[in-house]
Amino acid sequence: MRLWTASKFLLSKISYNCMNSICHAFKILYTLELCTHLCVIVEDGKVIASGRNRTNETQNATRHAEMEVIDTFLEQWREHRLSKSEVAEKFSKCKLYVTCEPCIMCAVALSFIGIKEVFYGCANDKFGGCGSVLSLHSTPKGEGFKCTGGIMATEAVSLFRSFYEQGNPNASKPHRPLAQQATQ
Amino acid sequence: MRLWTASKFLLSKISYNCMNSICHAFKILYTLELCTHLCVIVEDGKVIASGRNRTNETQNATRHAEMEVIDTFLEQWREHRLSKSEVAEKFSKCKLYVTCEPCIMCAVALSFIGIKEVFYGCANDKFGGCGSVLSLHSTPKGEGFKCTGGIMATEAVSLFRSFYEQGNPNASKPHRPLAQQATQ
Repeated sequence: MRLWTASKFLLSKISYNCMNSICHAFKILYTLELCTHLCVIVEDGKVIASGRNRTNETQNATRHAEMEVIDTFLEQWREHRLSKSEVAEKFSKCKLYVTCEPCIMCAVALSFIGIKEVFYGCANDKFGGCGSVLSLHSTPKGEGFKCTGGIMATEAVSLFRSFYEQGNPNASKPHRPLAQQATQ
Repeated sequence: MRLWTASKFLLSKISYNCMNSICHAFKILYTLELCTHLCVIVEDGKVIASGRNRTNETQNATRHAEMEVIDTFLEQWREHRLSKSEVAEKFSKCKLYVTCEPCIMCAVALSFIGIKEVFYGCANDKFGGCGSVLSLHSTPKGEGFKCTGGIMATEAVSLFRSFYEQGNPNASKPHRPLAQQATQ
């Protein structure tokens, strides 16, 4: 069910041809690793990198899904020995799809790397950097990236709510008990 | 000369007892690696981690000195198998010293990890997140971190100017010719 919801979220904006690769990426990220903060980078209609929030796992509060996918992406390109200008050109053609609006930190990071466009599900009312708290994705001079939010926002909110209601087994000190424990 | 300027910048705000360790950190970072965007994390008056801007080296525009030092710091703690709460407690006692005002992305990142206090040299008029463009280091509720800027700002500006006038040999496509090449 979760995989389906996550996939539907993405499929609303990318072509039908992407379905298989997106389902594959989300199957790994979402079903197996129990994480809702997910993103993928798409180039020419194909998912080429994926990331998930790893703040608990790494004990590093900056390791949001977007920062993870940027590093994964660049690691791939380093292996192909692309030059700096080739990397910049790559980023300028890529789109990022993420379940929740990038926070202020991630919005600036995505702007620094020169991503072409970002699509997100639900708004991030506390830290959102693409319109909710601040609008750091673009400047009056037209710099930055295009951003479209609210894609299947209801489903995205439901997905996060469901996740947090169950409790996060990866957190070192869960704020809420896991569903299974709570019913014991 | 550069080492001396960089050391003086830090020494204006931290105790004399720190001098040796700071000089050591900056000798490696600054003199040998030819980089002006530097920072150190200090715990109980002792430098415990250092970072430098690695955006050109990694071809990753998000690898600012502050992001580097956070990762270095956490790597050390992971080796010591500290828990998440122990890591959070560590950060809440640490101070960060950096040559230039943290950008918006780094200001939020430092806030996320819960650093106690930040000191910086010159302002970052284009991207500064601690007062110059936005003030993201603290909230009206008192969350975030204390921040003091303008420490030996003239020297810090001079240090950056000198660096960029010479050209950056680490950049893949230098915007300015290196001093040596320019005089040939």
